[in-house]
Amino acid sequence: MTEEVEIKEGLQGVYIAKSSISKVNGEEGKLYYRGYKIEDLAEKSTYEEVCYLILYGKLPNSKELDSFSNELKKERILSDETIEIIKRMSKKAHVLDTLRTAMSSISADDPEPYSSEEEKNVHKAVKIIAKTATISAAIGRVRKGKDIIPPDDSLGHAKNFLYMLTGEKPDNKKAKLMDVMFILHAEHSSNASTFAALVACSTLADIYSAVVAGEAALKGPLHGGADEAAVKMMQAIGEPGNTEKYINEVLASKEKIMGFGHRVYKAYDPRARILKKYLDEIDGNGEEEVNKLVKIALNTEKIMVDRLGKSHGIWPNVDFFAGPLYMHLGIEPELFDVIFSSSRTVGWCAHVIEYWRNNKLFRPLEEYDGALDLEYKPINER
Amino acid sequence: MTEEVEIKEGLQGVYIAKSSISKVNGEEGKLYYRGYKIEDLAEKSTYEEVCYLILYGKLPNSKELDSFSNELKKERILSDETIEIIKRMSKKAHVLDTLRTAMSSISADDPEPYSSEEEKNVHKAVKIIAKTATISAAIGRVRKGKDIIPPDDSLGHAKNFLYMLTGEKPDNKKAKLMDVMFILHAEHSSNASTFAALVACSTLADIYSAVVAGEAALKGPLHGGADEAAVKMMQAIGEPGNTEKYINEVLASKEKIMGFGHRVYKAYDPRARILKKYLDEIDGNGEEEVNKLVKIALNTEKIMVDRLGKSHGIWPNVDFFAGPLYMHLGIEPELFDVIFSSSRTVGWCAHVIEYWRNNKLFRPLEEYDGALDLEYKPINER
Repeated sequence: MTEEVEIKEGLQGVYIAKSSISKVNGEEGKLYYRGYKIEDLAEKSTYEEVCYLILYGKLPNSKELDSFSNELKKERILSDETIEIIKRMSKKAHVLDTLRTAMSSISADDPEPYSSEEEKNVHKAVKIIAKTATISAAIGRVRKGKDIIPPDDSLGHAKNFLYMLTGEKPDNKKAKLMDVMFILHAEHSSNASTFAALVACSTLADIYSAVVAGEAALKGPLHGGADEAAVKMMQAIGEPGNTEKYINEVLASKEKIMGFGHRVYKAYDPRARILKKYLDEIDGNGEEEVNKLVKIALNTEKIMVDRLGKSHGIWPNVDFFAGPLYMHLGIEPELFDVIFSSSRTVGWCAHVIEYWRNNKLFRPLEEYDGALDLEYKPINER
Repeated sequence: MTEEVEIKEGLQGVYIAKSSISKVNGEEGKLYYRGYKIEDLAEKSTYEEVCYLILYGKLPNSKELDSFSNELKKERILSDETIEIIKRMSKKAHVLDTLRTAMSSISADDPEPYSSEEEKNVHKAVKIIAKTATISAAIGRVRKGKDIIPPDDSLGHAKNFLYMLTGEKPDNKKAKLMDVMFILHAEHSSNASTFAALVACSTLADIYSAVVAGEAALKGPLHGGADEAAVKMMQAIGEPGNTEKYINEVLASKEKIMGFGHRVYKAYDPRARILKKYLDEIDGNGEEEVNKLVKIALNTEKIMVDRLGKSHGIWPNVDFFAGPLYMHLGIEPELFDVIFSSSRTVGWCAHVIEYWRNNKLFRPLEEYDGALDLEYKPINER
């Protein structure tokens, strides 16, 4: 007689830890970082401040924020080794492979990658957050055959990122939008990439290893990539006037419209609602290609919400609106996931630091359903 | 009223999937790969054959094994990019950081890193298994300031590995022992590193990303490193005659003897039993330093088994005996985990391929225990 075993597929419904980092209320469409509404943070805060909040659990005062921002600036520089990896891999590798490898290399410059001291790990997190932005921009440059642009210490995180990527210092409106993109992607509880980071850190591997595990998980299309797919759909629609026809055809063939519906949100994704305001603002004020994408996005949203919103609980998620906004900032679709990953480093790091307070090695079970005690036959008898 | 939530710490006792790859029977001290006893495989098989078995689920016939071994040989070569990473990082990084980064770079040469076809993923696994051995040996060379030795196609996996690492072609006895070390570390069900690989692959990220996640997890001392710690203890004991006194002191101070006891095995670890035979063989026949370590290991085993074996269920595990055997093969302690990780790539790959047959994204839950609806105050009011 064998005991009956229940398999928790995908660990759906299984709680793995307590956490005070973020709260996703999928039923009501609410998201909080450390208790603060995502709407307030997106409107009033910066990515630097949100990183401080997520890592330390409280909003900084002026002195704390200055010191934190300065540390971020100081850590932006990449080693020659990391730059070399970006240059060599970008010629042929997927951007997320290059990002993962470059990030994996930065621990080389830390003589003590693991620490049991929380404050030290926060400083390692700052290093990771700062360098991932520089790596991401460098990947964007090198894959277009352009020179890498070193960081500019006079600029904040978002502005500096756009400068390193495009070579132009953005105006305040674009910098604010970039900040919002970073903020909205900074954290989202224990999804697959964060969970991969937790599994890695639970062996007491260092925070760098954990972030690399997170990046490894983020690469899959069941996690990242929906924003790129959504904007490619918009590009395929081509003209705003084609939107309804296109959607009718997709829905009739029972296929999905990318960027709608969410495993957790059964109401309007609050991040998508924030981004929609930015689209409304840009509508008609961007460059021609962006204007078209914006109109297509807004048309699609209207049609889909009317048809599937309240009736089916299928609403736009953050990935749907992100694409046209990134394009407005001069960021091409192939880089969307790189930015997602870079933004999320802070969430991964905060989860690792939190998990270590009450660390427990992850060691789940598999139900063995194979043979036992097979006879090993010599090769000439097989 | 809130629902009561049960937190499954470390996912202990939680089943995540069915698997037919390996069966660990901790109560009786038995281990099977694909239904074959580990004792049979260690005695009669080679690492190449075991890799075939683990990946394909059956032992190969001669033709299949030839073809598989040839493919492994063909895939041993590293790209210039990967070699460059090893050379540059080895100067300052931990060996496992270099290994993880170098492994992360090999996907660059695969134009289609993800495939939904199982056979294609098996070929990617072969690439990973072959290259990880070359990377591991290269790390061992470069960190000693020695030139990297390219693979020799006339040699099998174990012999070639020792040749690339030491520069000398080993005799058949040493090659067999190396084979055994690779075989015993090839697979061990859903431990933390394998589970990290599964979490990463569950997003449909590619097999390379999954292996990198596995390597990230393996770095932690709750997973790897016990063999290195055990041999360092033996080195600290110094002389066989000091063994009992040393152990008495450690036990009196309620500290642990590294390499004894196991989360799963409550009987003698079958892998340790296999290794003990090799120690008995080497006893008195190795070089002076190795002879001392072997005697200290055998003395320690005897004392510990007498005192804590049957009475407390604390037995030596595979990590305890591995160290002196690696030393006998000319492998220094700092490389033990690199070899463990290299051996385990096949287990990770097989698990990924198996999991994808019935893939389910891992998305566990956290219980939120933080604040909600905090008021965002301007920075000058904080």
